[in-house]
Amino acid sequence: MSQDNLDRLRKQLDSVNLRLLELLSERASIAQDIGMEKEKQGVPKYDPVREKSMLEELVRSNKGPFDDETISHLFKQIFQASLKLQQTDHHKHLLV
Amino acid sequence: MSQDNLDRLRKQLDSVNLRLLELLSERASIAQDIGMEKEKQGVPKYDPVREKSMLEELVRSNKGPFDDETISHLFKQIFQASLKLQQTDHHKHLLV
Repeated sequence: MSQDNLDRLRKQLDSVNLRLLELLSERASIAQDIGMEKEKQGVPKYDPVREKSMLEELVRSNKGPFDDETISHLFKQIFQASLKLQQTDHHKHLLV
Repeated sequence: MSQDNLDRLRKQLDSVNLRLLELLSERASIAQDIGMEKEKQGVPKYDPVREKSMLEELVRSNKGPFDDETISHLFKQIFQASLKLQQTDHHKHLLV
């Protein structure tokens, strides 16, 4: 019975993992579009004010079980990866 | 027009951020249930084999734009945060 419970929970986790992957990919794709738009407008990709305001909004909306510090940490990693992606796109653009 | 584009994309990003937060919270809650189930069964919380197999599944399902290395990195952070949560629960349990 307990092993069944564990298997059921693991299946739920696998499904959430794949939905997270989809959402992270969707986010990355929007970040790429933002990067290209900023490129056109000649404004810097990294915007610490906007990043701070996104983090504040997320912490404000956090109902747990992760604590606010963990949510901030995880999203900072996601922001960093998105910025890296925008910079790689810029580099590719220069090479074309 | 370009500023409108940027505003539209930022709104999309804000919405994806909140959906990511919800999904991360759902994942954290399942991880807590798994932690409690493992506690009952007396098996260790950290399971490197299962973690490796989840990462492989995620990398296999990754269609970009993030590269596989970035997806692995982001999910490792998520796994680590979940394990920390299970260990905190264990500590709380001991204090009751």
